[in-house]
Parts: sequence; C-alpha cells; structure tokens
Amino acid sequence: MEPTLTVRVRSRDGGATVERDDRLAVEEPLEIRVTAAGQPSPVSFVTTMRTPGRDEDLAAGLLFSEGVIERMTDLVGLGRPDDPRMEEELRANVLVARLAPDAFARSEKLRRGTIMGSACGVCGRTTIENVIPAGCAPVLSKVSVPAALLTSLPGRLSTRQSIFAATGGLHAVALFDAAGALQDVAEDIGRHNATDKLVGGYLRRGELPLGDRVLMVSGRAGFEILEKAYRAGIPIVASVSAPSSLAVELAEAAGITLVGFLRGERFNVYTHPGRIAG
Amino acid sequence: MEPTLTVRVRSRDGGATVERDDRLAVEEPLEIRVTAAGQPSPVSFVTTMRTPGRDEDLAAGLLFSEGVIERMTDLVGLGRPDDPRMEEELRANVLVARLAPDAFARSEKLRRGTIMGSACGVCGRTTIENVIPAGCAPVLSKVSVPAALLTSLPGRLSTRQSIFAATGGLHAVALFDAAGALQDVAEDIGRHNATDKLVGGYLRRGELPLGDRVLMVSGRAGFEILEKAYRAGIPIVASVSAPSSLAVELAEAAGITLVGFLRGERFNVYTHPGRIAG
Repeated sequence: MEPTLTVRVRSRDGGATVERDDRLAVEEPLEIRVTAAGQPSPVSFVTTMRTPGRDEDLAAGLLFSEGVIERMTDLVGLGRPDDPRMEEELRANVLVARLAPDAFARSEKLRRGTIMGSACGVCGRTTIENVIPAGCAPVLSKVSVPAALLTSLPGRLSTRQSIFAATGGLHAVALFDAAGALQDVAEDIGRHNATDKLVGGYLRRGELPLGDRVLMVSGRAGFEILEKAYRAGIPIVASVSAPSSLAVELAEAAGITLVGFLRGERFNVYTHPGRIAG
Repeated sequence: MEPTLTVRVRSRDGGATVERDDRLAVEEPLEIRVTAAGQPSPVSFVTTMRTPGRDEDLAAGLLFSEGVIERMTDLVGLGRPDDPRMEEELRANVLVARLAPDAFARSEKLRRGTIMGSACGVCGRTTIENVIPAGCAPVLSKVSVPAALLTSLPGRLSTRQSIFAATGGLHAVALFDAAGALQDVAEDIGRHNATDKLVGGYLRRGELPLGDRVLMVSGRAGFEILEKAYRAGIPIVASVSAPSSLAVELAEAAGITLVGFLRGERFNVYTHPGRIAG
C-alpha cells in the first residue's frame, strides 16, 4: 500500500477555480494481533490509524512502548496473517506478532484491563508513576550538544521529509547523533505512530537503548512522545513547537532534556539544561 | 484546574540565554466512568489525555461520538465522583456519567470488545461502514456558503483562540453558521477532544443535530474529525491544513463538503463542492 494517494480537487484562488490533482497522505487502520506458542489463534491487541509504510517497525515500536515487548527476544516473529481466504486489502492492514510466553501474558493483561497502560492514571502524578515505576532509573546520559547544533536540526530534518513535502499532511520524527548526523527519520499521519516506527526499527535491529542521541519532532511535544523517548533511553528531545505541562513533568522526572520552540536561532530549554553546551 | 500552567524556562536566542516565565497548555488525563440505575458502582469506560476545561462537554461529546449516547435522554447525569475519601486532584480528573439502561448496555459491549468502535475496522472500507451503517442517510443539508465567507473564517477563529495565543500549544475547532457568525469555539491539546467538547456542548443543550453549519478545524482533517462531524450532522468541514485519504473517503460517503488548505484567498474542495457558491 502506498503512503500517498492522488485525488482530483477543485482548487480555488480568489475568483478562479481550477480542477487539478492533489496528493493526500494515506490514513488506514492497522490491526496488530498477538499470539504465542501453544495459543489456538492470534487475538486482536489494538487497531491504530496510520500511514502505510514501515508497518513492522510501527507494530514492534507500539508493542514496546505499551510495555508488551521489553527486549528483542520477546518478539519471536512478525508478519502478515497466513489465512489464504483473507482479501489482499485486509492482509495489508493486519500484522501478527508472535511473542515469547511472558510478553504474551503481558499483552493479555493489558487487553483485559487488569494492568494499566501509561495513559490510564487518573492524575498526572499517577500517570508519570506508571511510566517510571519506583526504583526505575531516569535517563543518565552525560552527552552534551552545542546550541548551534540544535538550531541546525530543523533544516536537516526538512530535507528528508519526503511525504510531508508532497502532501503537507504528515508528522515527522528524526533521530540525530551527538554530532548532528541524521540517523533515521519516520513519517506518519500520527506523531505517536512516527515515533513508534522510528523506535521500532531500532528495536528490531537490536539497537536499543538509544543513549547519547537527540530525538527531533516536527510538531508539539506531548506526554506520549516523552514516554516513548524514556522507554527508548533517549536523553534529549527537541520539538519545533510547544510542549505540554505533563511532557515537561515527565521529562523532569525521567532525566530528559526537553527543548521546545526550536525555530531559527531560538529555542527554550524546559528541563535538564546541562546537556546543552555554550 | 487551569488550562495553562506557568513554568520557568531557559530561553536561548543566538548567543544569549535568559531565564523567563513560559505558559504551557496543561495536559492531564480525564477518566470517564459510566453507571446506570441498579448498577453496583461506576466502571471506567475510557481515559483520555486532555486540557482541563469543559470536561462535562468533553465527556458527553466523547460518549456521543463513540456511540454510547445516541440522544440527550441517554445521559441521565454527569458529575464528579461523590467518594469523600478521594483527593481533590483525583476528583478533578474523573467524571461519572449516569446513563439510561440501553446506553449503559452499549458502553458495556464497547468495553468488552463485543461491538466495535469505528476505528476498529481492518480496512478503510470496513471502517467507513462502521461509521455509516447500510441504510443510514448521509448529511442532506442544502446549505450553501459563498467562497468569500469561507476565506474569512480562519481570521474570525484566530481572534478567539485564547489559550492557543498564550501557549502556541493547542488545537481549536469552531462552529460557524451559514452567515459566518461564530457560534462556539473549543480548544484542547488534542484535536479530537476539542471537537468532542464543541459537539458535547450542543448535545447537553439539546441542540443536535447541527444542520446548516460549518465546522472549522485549526490543523489537519483526519478520519476522526469527519466521523464526529457526520454524527453531529454538520454539512461543511473546513481545515487550514491537509485532509487524510480516509477523511476524504468518509466525507464523500457521508455527504459532507470537505475543504482543505484554507489560507488567505485560497482553498481546496475535496468533496461535494455544490455547497460552495460563486
């Protein structure tokens, strides 16, 4: 399935109307099913609206950020359903994750609501304690990046946002090393999906945690983005727009340096400023 | 609870760093619990991350867009939990909806996954059929608005986005009548929440469906926004940014006029252009 789709559109500019082609970002549901050795058949874990592309990374990253997968060996296999009666269009929107027994047991508890996902606290404090349980360490990286490197990141990201450039309709997230080299970029109609795709790719290559790196997001920085960064071990998160109150609280508790409004030569540092040099 | 929060921030501009106050949009979880006459105690239906403010409208609008509430009489009461042992901070993040028996039964089926929410189809076609079941009518309004009225809407909205103006961190949605008069505006860290707050307010006042109106959204138009507009009976949806592929498909099937990239004197019409005059 393609990540963009061309439609005919009536385009108006002042008094003139022309009919022309317009490229849209594709939004389609992806259903993630889970199973394990000895289970009768896969069960539906979650359905998310996403832009097709890197579906396997998205599924792995989502199962990781939900706490189902804790390490690479928890994910035994990942692929399309093998039911030959299933239409091709349906198959393209379903992935089946084969899990180790412990990971499958965690997915069952989450599905049944007997343990809580991170967004299920009833106040911000509880929510943060769900992400960073007592005894779990914050991000401890001593990495330091110059301010001038930070201000160069939006430009480096925009040259790689291919689908966004075509449609104007996608979020992008990118991972840079401490020298400012772009290591990966992921796009999606949902910012949380883009982050899951990026983190899921590193998980599948056995390259987590992501110490000493900078995560850059094209829009706002909300709670979920900081949660995913913490789970992946990323010490610096930079956004071109505003963070939310709970994102700042979580960054403070998680030991993450949170940068916002990164535009031109300007930015704000909300938490742990020691990692920004100069 | 306030919708904004002031924090200290290190603000960098070129070589200079100053410490100053910065206002953030508050993001906190809201847990919606449901109960009905004869039930032992309220049960948790969903938790959503939201910006505090108009919580009752948000809860009513969310239960309406999920299909739990179908008419105003389905919502018997809505208020904070009456447990005196509960801390004030927790109480502010919980609402209890007392439902009519039929509505409570629908909430139980949704909670247990025995019926599907609209985002649970495994392909776009199924997803749209979940929103508009066979036999249900599309939006039939014959309203017509001049192109010049459409291009005036972003300016009319921006003068009313108070929290956005303070934080740069919120989505806004607004409802205009066919003469361009602003009737209501709602803001939230989540675009879907802002739409639920707006629709929920009309639901609680007994003013649904919203025929002959224009819904304007400050960002992208995704599937969920069109779904909520269809359920509320809104014939025209205008976005300042890009629609998704599934939003266009749903607008086409739902009889909704979908306008995108509404900026300055320009806009695109994706579906049902007959409602834009001139």
